Parts: sequence; structure tokens; C-alpha cells
Amino acid sequence: MSTATDALPVVFEDVRRAAERLAGVAHRTPVLTSRTLDAATGATVFCKAEHLQRIGAFKFRGAYNALAALDPHERARGVVAFSSGNHAQAVALAARLLAVPATIVMPLDAPPVKVAATRDYGAEVVTYDRYTEDRRAIGEAIATERGATVVPPYDHPDVIAGQGTAALELLEDVPDLDALVVPIGGGGLLAGSAVSMRAVRPEATVLGVEPAGRRAARDAMQRGEVVQVPVGRTLLDGQQTPEVGVRNLALLRAHVDRVEGVDDDEALAAMRLLATRMKQVVEPSGASALGALLAGRFPDLRGARVGVLLSGGNVTPEVLARALA
Amino acid sequence: MSTATDALPVVFEDVRRAAERLAGVAHRTPVLTSRTLDAATGATVFCKAEHLQRIGAFKFRGAYNALAALDPHERARGVVAFSSGNHAQAVALAARLLAVPATIVMPLDAPPVKVAATRDYGAEVVTYDRYTEDRRAIGEAIATERGATVVPPYDHPDVIAGQGTAALELLEDVPDLDALVVPIGGGGLLAGSAVSMRAVRPEATVLGVEPAGRRAARDAMQRGEVVQVPVGRTLLDGQQTPEVGVRNLALLRAHVDRVEGVDDDEALAAMRLLATRMKQVVEPSGASALGALLAGRFPDLRGARVGVLLSGGNVTPEVLARALA
Repeated sequence: MSTATDALPVVFEDVRRAAERLAGVAHRTPVLTSRTLDAATGATVFCKAEHLQRIGAFKFRGAYNALAALDPHERARGVVAFSSGNHAQAVALAARLLAVPATIVMPLDAPPVKVAATRDYGAEVVTYDRYTEDRRAIGEAIATERGATVVPPYDHPDVIAGQGTAALELLEDVPDLDALVVPIGGGGLLAGSAVSMRAVRPEATVLGVEPAGRRAARDAMQRGEVVQVPVGRTLLDGQQTPEVGVRNLALLRAHVDRVEGVDDDEALAAMRLLATRMKQVVEPSGASALGALLAGRFPDLRGARVGVLLSGGNVTPEVLARALA
Repeated sequence: MSTATDALPVVFEDVRRAAERLAGVAHRTPVLTSRTLDAATGATVFCKAEHLQRIGAFKFRGAYNALAALDPHERARGVVAFSSGNHAQAVALAARLLAVPATIVMPLDAPPVKVAATRDYGAEVVTYDRYTEDRRAIGEAIATERGATVVPPYDHPDVIAGQGTAALELLEDVPDLDALVVPIGGGGLLAGSAVSMRAVRPEATVLGVEPAGRRAARDAMQRGEVVQVPVGRTLLDGQQTPEVGVRNLALLRAHVDRVEGVDDDEALAAMRLLATRMKQVVEPSGASALGALLAGRFPDLRGARVGVLLSGGNVTPEVLARALA
């Protein structure tokens, strides 16, 4: 870890500005606690409930902040995003709220409910064949043709700053955290959270959790450069991206202490505890940080006051049923 | 409806005293809202989230209030309850918190997880055969033998007053409700809620929801006396009691405008919306009031500001999976 933050792509002032933009627009999500959870982890756990955020995931924060940062000319020309997941709905809703035209590039075989939800927010959906076509190329072609702005899902300063507002709120509610555990896919949420933690609570430990079979974050942090890794089959679909973003990695190396792996069964166990004891529906990736904590992947956190990001709740009934089985 | 409340078994001052006893002991549960829910009902809906109460249901309020009202001699001799459901755990937890010995009479075939949870709270569990033995007789025999106090699940002034604190909190958070919709089984929650509503928001409509195949509340209100009805098979196990309590009925007749029926599928549809859109796990009875509203059983509430009691979240994984299917 380095403490020189001058050259970093996002600083705390960016998160503060994002928080001002999001005030009254994003939900200020609650912090959930549970005696059962504390007993099961040996820690005092504070869950930041981003599954209760608008569109059901933290992604709304970054997308809205990125769109709100556009100037009037950029807004008029619209935005493009490529995503089959929560980022698509986040950009679509943010665009509607800011009256910005939005085009979302989604795979042909995306869940119909997600395509419908994205259209319901007023976005134009362009589909592609994920086995033969490159969504990035399609998205960028549309952006070039229309003069629209591409809103990337994680490797963007305004997206990262927006995601950092969740940890900032958690720290306002629970100022004396010893540690924060955050799921990592591309790294938007972890990088943004780390910026907030280092500024407000520098002595706390900042930890990431990625799928056990995907070492994109762990290897990249070790090598100091983005690495592309194969991602095996996992239920943790919010973290299936094969790489961490460039800006995200710079922030991870500056601010994050450690990343650990979590496997599907550990995430499912966390989903089960959340549903049966805390009555909360959380998606596998959304429960992955808690899953790692429950599985004992952070033995140094026993006795600590630990924040955990529950990052999203958009799970299919089938996967939820599997967690409960 | 009569407005003469002098002879009624519970008055608002009783609810206020219960609220003082419960302060810092019961959770002050949140009020949940959802744009999807408002669109689906045509109303502005405020859900009081008692599935997030201690033991996962509103029952903790009444049980704790009843035990807290006992004098030191009564507390020393202990309490007895007969229940296979949320009331058992509510009495067990309240007893532990107040250091009162508790005996819970449960059927031999009660779900093992519920028996274990009740024992975990430190209560003694006595089992009986629900097909050949009478739980009330067993409970009363134990009470007589030990000098213990029976804590009934609904037909008791302190229980009713305790249950009334949930609606009181809701009114503090949302003072301008036009109506409140509450599930009714034995009538503790509806009677207590109605006392609070009539005192704080007398112009609002107070409505109950019971299983469609059980007319215990509707027939009793019409006839003016408690009626025993057969209860068909229903998933609404929190409302399977074949009668409304005597005290409860007096309060219903004084304060409640109307009771409507809800069928299993309507409750399951509400559970599904709660899980998929609001990310909340609610049991069938807990979702029954919302189910009736969603099913259009209260057409007069279109455009109104409607409070809905989500009364509990203790659902088996199997039933939750069925709601999601």
C-alpha cells in the first residue's frame, strides 16, 4: 500500500461531490444488524443494505453520478452502456431521471425480466450475440455514430466516486468500524469504498472478496498490473468480469489491505442466513462478502466491528430457492 | 361501531404504557415503501415491517408487555404458554429477557426448528399429541401445579396493548394515514392497532384481513358474539385459530370498519412481490393484508395513503420457494 494519493484517479472530494449529487435521489439504505450474525461470525457486523437501493443494487449510485456529471451537450447526445446486469438498469433509470437518452447493449440471451425492466425505464435496448459479437465494439460504434457517451460499469472516475458513497453513509452511521468487507468484480464498489474508508477511518482494514475461482483481483494486486483471468462457472454473476479496471486497480493497490476468495456454497449459506434470520433477499454476489466472513476467511476480524457491503438483491427465484434448499 | 370506550378491555393509555415498557427492548421496525407497490395497488402504501421485529414477528410486543406487567411474585413463579408458532418464541424470549421461568406447550409434530428455537431461548418445552390431547388443559394443569401465569396468545389486555404499539409507531412515522390494513387471526394485532388508530387518527379506516375460508372475524363481528368456525387447509398458519378472542371482538366491534377475506394465492402473490421487488421475506399470514390490498379487495382505498402491517417473516424455505415459483 502507498499513501500517496495525488496521482490517484479518485480522491475523497470526488466521493463527497457524488454524495451531494445523490442526496434525495439515491436511497439512503439502512444498516442491518443481527444477533445471530454476530454469534455466527464472532464479530459485531453492520450490513450496509444496498440490495434495498434503487434498481436493487449499489450500481445506481455510480451510474447516476456519472450521468449527473455530464454537461448539457453531452446529456443531449445521450449515453450508451453494455451490460446484462444491474449496471444496465442503473444507467437506464439514471438516464430517465436526468432526461438523457440511453441505449443499452444486452446479450440476446439476457433474462427477459432484465430486458423488460431496462425498457420500462425508457432505455433503447440493442441486443447482440454474446458468442459471436463483441458488446464493447457494438457499444462504441453506437456511441461514435450518435456522439453519445459510453458509461462503463466500473473503470470510470465518476462511477467509482458514486459507488464510494455507500461506505461513506455507513461510516456516518457507524463511525468506529474496524474493518469493511466489500465484494469485488470490476472493482468499482471496492475502489470507491476504499477511498471513503481511507479518508474517514484511515486506521480501519479494507478487504475485498472475489469468486474463489477468479483470481483477477488477487493476481492483479500482487503483480501490479491488470490481468485477464478465465472465470469458471459461478453463481456469483455480479463478479464474473475477467479483469479489474485500470483505475480500480490503482485504488486497490493504494488503499485495500487484502482480497480473499469465496465459493458459491459460502455465498449461498450467507443468502440463507440473510433470508431465514434477517428476512432479506440478497443475490449471490451481494452476499459474497458476508459469505466469506461467515466461512472464516477473515479470522483476524474476530471481535472486531465489521462493516459488510450487501451489494445487490436481484436474484432469480430459482437461485434463491437453491440457497434455501 | 360504537364510540363509547369506557367499558372496553384496552384503551389507548394501555398502549402508551406498553410502548414505554417496550422502548429499547423491541425493535422500532422500519416503514417500507415501494414505487412498484404503489403502482400495483393504486394507493400510497406504507408497510410496517414487523417481520423485522425480534423473533421475526409482532408477537414479541404483546408477550413482553404481558410479562413486564407481572409483579415480582408472579414473575418468580413463571409463565406458561401454549403455541406452535410465533407466540411460543415470543414468550420464551420475553421470559429470558425478564429472567422469568417459562414453560411452552407445543405439539409433538411442531417444526423441529421452532422447538429448538424455543429451547434456545431457555424455555422448557412440554410436548403433547395434538390429535388426542388438549393443549389448553395441559397448559392450565402446569400453571395450576406451579402457580405459574398463563400468557394467552391474543385474548389478554396486556397482549393486545403490546400489539397496538406497532400501529402507534407507524402513526408516529406516517401521521396522515387514511387507512390501516391488518391481518387478523385471534385478533390481538388488529384490536391493538385499532385502539391506536382510533386515538391518534380517528378519521382513518381500520380494516382486517382473515383467510377467505375462515369467517371467524367476519361472522363474529356481524353476530356480535364469538363464533367457532372450521378452518380449512390454508398456508396462512398464523391465522388458523378457529375463533376471535372475547376481548378482541369487543374492540373490533368498537373500532374496526370491516374485515375481508384473502386466499392463499393472493398472499403468495404478495410474498412474491415483497421478495422480488422489496427484497423482503414475509410469511404467508404476514403478507395477507398486503395480499388482500393487491388483489383489489379494498377498492375504496385507491388513491389513499394506506398503512399495511407485515406481521411476520417466519416462513419455511419450502413455502417461500412456492411463493417464488
